[in-house]
Amino acid sequence: MADEVVLLDFWPSPFGMRVRIVLAEKGIKYEYKEENLWDKGPLLLKMNPVHKKIPVLIHNGKPICESLIMVQYIDEVWKDESPILPSDPYQRAQARFWADFVDKKASFSIYSVGTKVWMTKGEEQETAKKEFIECLKLLEGELGDKPYFGGQNIGFVDVALVPFYCWFYAFETCGNFSIEAECPTLIGWAKRCMEKESVSNSLHDQHKIYGFVLELKKRFGIE
Amino acid sequence: MADEVVLLDFWPSPFGMRVRIVLAEKGIKYEYKEENLWDKGPLLLKMNPVHKKIPVLIHNGKPICESLIMVQYIDEVWKDESPILPSDPYQRAQARFWADFVDKKASFSIYSVGTKVWMTKGEEQETAKKEFIECLKLLEGELGDKPYFGGQNIGFVDVALVPFYCWFYAFETCGNFSIEAECPTLIGWAKRCMEKESVSNSLHDQHKIYGFVLELKKRFGIE
Repeated sequence: MADEVVLLDFWPSPFGMRVRIVLAEKGIKYEYKEENLWDKGPLLLKMNPVHKKIPVLIHNGKPICESLIMVQYIDEVWKDESPILPSDPYQRAQARFWADFVDKKASFSIYSVGTKVWMTKGEEQETAKKEFIECLKLLEGELGDKPYFGGQNIGFVDVALVPFYCWFYAFETCGNFSIEAECPTLIGWAKRCMEKESVSNSLHDQHKIYGFVLELKKRFGIE
Repeated sequence: MADEVVLLDFWPSPFGMRVRIVLAEKGIKYEYKEENLWDKGPLLLKMNPVHKKIPVLIHNGKPICESLIMVQYIDEVWKDESPILPSDPYQRAQARFWADFVDKKASFSIYSVGTKVWMTKGEEQETAKKEFIECLKLLEGELGDKPYFGGQNIGFVDVALVPFYCWFYAFETCGNFSIEAECPTLIGWAKRCMEKESVSNSLHDQHKIYGFVLELKKRFGIE
């Protein structure tokens, strides 16, 4: 039986982008279904009844939810092509640690605090920017001299983190600061990732993301 | 070389208990080092500089942090004895999903909302109790007719969830409600888990945990 792979997604989602990158890296053909987050469709509600969130991967009719779990699942099922997680258990634990760090900080720093950068003003915004940069600097430390977090090729942490890169322009513009000035190594890494088609084809243009942020601000009544 | 395994832990931690259960299930000998959370030791700060939290597993001098990552690491290194994660990728993704659900709800429902049950009063406490029970009912649905979440034996989700059982008495007493009345199936499952020495020896007595909660309330000035 040919594999039937469907991805329920929403175009600006950094979590959805993770899954798109890995599907592209492994050359897996799939059907992309755009969801309307303001009016969730019955398929999404059926496939992810607990969290009711995109992305959801549907493989031969069975749903897998939560982006990092989906990435691991894809890596385990299509294991011969472009491994994403290292084979050594300790290296794998380290990759999981930093991907989890991105996710936890994706709540507190990269995404929400990133969100704070464009949702708030004054002191609160300054604190958010500071936390955001501290978080990126810790990641720069982990990257070290390697071309990718995964070593010579993109791996689990690269996949977890790089989608936020296309949100950086919106953060910088709304927060009036430069991420590149603070974290040049990380920006160098992100540009290196973007040279890969699997990444550049999965992310969206930074100006389009900024437009989406402006739309969100309007929707939530933030000037 | 014999494996040198050290666990930095704090006795009432449900996250530490997860690791203790898996080490016991696999019959791994280790040195338990109690940390003082109010005065963190240099070893903890060195081994977990990012989060500065227990538990930390130190295997032959190298640290692994975050309880669910530690459990997966132990399962991958000591793979022949008592497997914790299923071998099928889809079943593994499902186990990861529900363990992640426990963790996310462990922030929002089981632990913090559990915490709200004893930290707050009135309407806020009622909402917290309702959310907490809803979360447990979802888990009951996932358990279904199986003896354990892992099937015939305890698995990843059992290990992730069962440590909270010894906190239930404190939640019930402070919140003045009965979890067993609301979720009898889940309590039946917890009691089944407690029949295993790996579990009962890793958890602490519910009255001792309640005493700890009273101490915490005092420390934070909550009547």
